[in-house]
Amino acid sequence: MFQDFIYDIGTKVYFGPEMLCHLGEEIKKYGDKVFFLYKGSYTKTMGIYDLVMQAAETYDFEVVEFSKVQPNPRHTDVQEGADLCREKGCKVILAVGGGSAIDSAKAIASAALLDAPVWDIVMGKVPVTESLPLITIPTVAATGSEMNGGAVISNLETRDKQSLRRPSQRPRATFLNPQYTYSVSKYQTACGSVDILCHTIETYFSSDNCMYMLDTFMEGLVRTVLKYAPVACREPDNDEARANLMWAAPWAINDFLRYDKECNWTIHPIEHEISAYYDITHGLGLAIIMPRYLRHIIDEKSLKRFRRLGIHALGIDDRLEDEAIAQETIRRIESFCWDEMELESHFLALGIDGRDFDEIAGKLTEEDGFRYGGYRRLSKEDIVSILKECL
Amino acid sequence: MFQDFIYDIGTKVYFGPEMLCHLGEEIKKYGDKVFFLYKGSYTKTMGIYDLVMQAAETYDFEVVEFSKVQPNPRHTDVQEGADLCREKGCKVILAVGGGSAIDSAKAIASAALLDAPVWDIVMGKVPVTESLPLITIPTVAATGSEMNGGAVISNLETRDKQSLRRPSQRPRATFLNPQYTYSVSKYQTACGSVDILCHTIETYFSSDNCMYMLDTFMEGLVRTVLKYAPVACREPDNDEARANLMWAAPWAINDFLRYDKECNWTIHPIEHEISAYYDITHGLGLAIIMPRYLRHIIDEKSLKRFRRLGIHALGIDDRLEDEAIAQETIRRIESFCWDEMELESHFLALGIDGRDFDEIAGKLTEEDGFRYGGYRRLSKEDIVSILKECL
Repeated sequence: MFQDFIYDIGTKVYFGPEMLCHLGEEIKKYGDKVFFLYKGSYTKTMGIYDLVMQAAETYDFEVVEFSKVQPNPRHTDVQEGADLCREKGCKVILAVGGGSAIDSAKAIASAALLDAPVWDIVMGKVPVTESLPLITIPTVAATGSEMNGGAVISNLETRDKQSLRRPSQRPRATFLNPQYTYSVSKYQTACGSVDILCHTIETYFSSDNCMYMLDTFMEGLVRTVLKYAPVACREPDNDEARANLMWAAPWAINDFLRYDKECNWTIHPIEHEISAYYDITHGLGLAIIMPRYLRHIIDEKSLKRFRRLGIHALGIDDRLEDEAIAQETIRRIESFCWDEMELESHFLALGIDGRDFDEIAGKLTEEDGFRYGGYRRLSKEDIVSILKECL
Repeated sequence: MFQDFIYDIGTKVYFGPEMLCHLGEEIKKYGDKVFFLYKGSYTKTMGIYDLVMQAAETYDFEVVEFSKVQPNPRHTDVQEGADLCREKGCKVILAVGGGSAIDSAKAIASAALLDAPVWDIVMGKVPVTESLPLITIPTVAATGSEMNGGAVISNLETRDKQSLRRPSQRPRATFLNPQYTYSVSKYQTACGSVDILCHTIETYFSSDNCMYMLDTFMEGLVRTVLKYAPVACREPDNDEARANLMWAAPWAINDFLRYDKECNWTIHPIEHEISAYYDITHGLGLAIIMPRYLRHIIDEKSLKRFRRLGIHALGIDDRLEDEAIAQETIRRIESFCWDEMELESHFLALGIDGRDFDEIAGKLTEEDGFRYGGYRRLSKEDIVSILKECL
C-alpha cells in the first residue's frame, strides 16, 4: 500500500557558470540587505566574493559579511551569526561554501527571527515556523544541503550533534557551478562522494516502500557516484564527473526519494555522535561505519533489497544467490570507500579507541529524537558491536 | 561538456487520497472564483465534483463550471472556455480529467489573460508571458501534463496539432490520487503507459548529454513502466502499480530529465500529425510508430545508447554485441506495446492507408517549429519510410 505524501521542493537551481549572472536579481527579490555568510579564503580566490560585491553594486543592495564557520558547525558561531543578522536587519541570507556553511546559514535563517538561544532552537524547545529566505552557492558536492531544509549543528560543550529540519529552511535558490569544485582536494572529493553515496544507501535501506520508481532512481544515483567519484579524484577538472556529482548531491537528499515511506536513518546518527566526540570529517566517518552497518543488517528481509541493489547498481551477476550478492555488494562498497577513494578503513588509525563507545551507544538509544532504521531495530549492544567492528 | 540550465519545477504535489483535504485551501490561495474545467461523467461518479463543491462551501469561493473537453482538445473549445473564464473574471483554474482536460486548461489559463484568438496564441503569434494559476487533478497516468507547462491543442479545420509550452502554464499544485485511476479501462491504461514510456525514450534518444545521472533515472522509468503497466492492466485496483505509474508520468516529462541538453522529440510530432489527420488515440499512435522509429535510428552513435538502455532497463545480457542488444531492446518494446498492452501494431488495422503520408511528412519537414531529434536528422523521405513501415 502506498503512503500519502506532499512533494514540495521549490528550490530554483541555476546550474553552470553562465547562470551566475542571475545572482543579483535573486538576492534583490527578497530585500536590499543580504547576510553574506562564506567560508574560507577560496570564496575570494575563486572570485565568488567579487561576484557578490559586483551584484551588490549593480542591484543596489547592502552586504553584511560573516565568515565564522567551522567544519561540524558550532552552535556558538551560529548564535553569533544570528545575533548579527537580527541586529543588522538583514532580509535574505546568501551562503557560500560547503555543507557547514549552508547548515550554519539555515540555523541562522531561523534563529534570526526568534529571540531564543540557538541551542534551544536546535533541540526543538523553541518551534521554528518561518526562516529568512536563503540562497546558496555550494563549493563542494557532498551534503546536498543546498536543496533541502535540514541542518546539522554541533554543541562541543555537551558533545552533541543535532539535526534541525524545517521546511522554511529549504533554500529558495541555489547556484551550482561544477567549476567551483575543480579545486576541491582529492580527500574532500572522496569524503563528499561517500556522503552522497551514504544518503542514497540509507534511504534505500531505511524501510520497504511501494515506490519502486524511487528505488530505481536510488540505484541510478549509486551507479553515478561509483562511476564519477574516482574520475573526479583522478582528474579534478573533469567537467562531466564534477557536473554529475554536483547534480547528484542534492537529489540524494532533497526529500524526493524518501517522501513515500518512513525514513529513519541509522548510519548518519551514529556517525554524528562519532564526529561530535572526535571531530573527524563526516564523510570519513561514514566510510568506516557504512560497510559494517550494512553487514550487520543482512537478514531474510533485507536480502531482497541487497539483491536488487547489487544487480542494478553494481552489475553483479543475477545468477548468484541472495547472500552472495549481498556480500559482494558490501565488498564493492568497501572497495569503493577504502581503495578507490583511499579513505581510512579503521577508527584506530584515527586515534579513536573504543573507550567511549558504550557512552555513545547509550546516547543514541536513549535519545527521543533518534528512531532506528527500518530493516533492523538496533539495540545499544548492536551499536557497540558495529562500532567495535570499525576499530 | 555540461550544458548550463535553470531547474525550476515548483509544482506542489499532493499524493494520495488523504491529501485531497487540501484542495480547498489551495484554490482559495489564488482567489475566490475558480474556473472548474472537468471532463466526463466520471468526475461526478468518482466523487470529485462533490469534493469541489464541498470545498467551495467550506472555503467560500465561487465555481464557474466548464466541461467542453474532447480527446485531442480542439482550439474552438479552448476559445469558448477562455472567453467564459475572462468574462466571469475567474482568478484560478481547476482542471480535472486526463491530458486533454489539463492541456485545455493550460491554453485557457493563458488565453483568458489575452485578447487574441486562441489559435494565434497556440501558433506563437501572440506571446504568452503570464497565465492564470492552475491546479490539476489528473484521473489517468499518461501525459504527465500535471507537472509541466506544455499543452497540445488541435485545429481540426487545418488538421494541425500544435504544442504550446510556457513556464507560466506549469500547474501550481497537483493532486495525484492513484485510486482515481482504478477505473481507467485496460485500453486507456495501455495507451497512457505507452505515452509515459515514449516520453522517456524520446528524451533518452534525443541527443547525447553529459548527465549520466539523468540517463540512469530514465532507465529506471522504463523499468518502472514495463514492470507495472501489465500489472495495472491485469489488476486495475493494484495500488502499487497505479501509484508507480501515477508518479512516473509527471517525472517522465516535467523537464527534469531534459534540462541539460538539446531535446528535440521526433516520435511525438509525427504522432501528433497522424492523430490530427485521423483522430486516433495518442498512445496508440505512439505504440505503432515508436518501434519503427527506433529501428530507423540505429547507427554507430546510437548503438552505445541502445546498449545501455538494453542492459540497465531491460536486463539484456551484456555479453551480446551492440547490434544484437539494440535489436533485442526494440523487440522487447514491441512486445510490450503489442503483446502485453495488446495495442494494435499496424495503421491499416485502424483504417489508415498511406495516401496522406507524403503530405504529413511534408508538413513536418516544412514547419519552422519542428526540429529533428539528435540521433538522426530526418528527411521527408525518412518520415515517409517510417510511416510506411507502420502500415
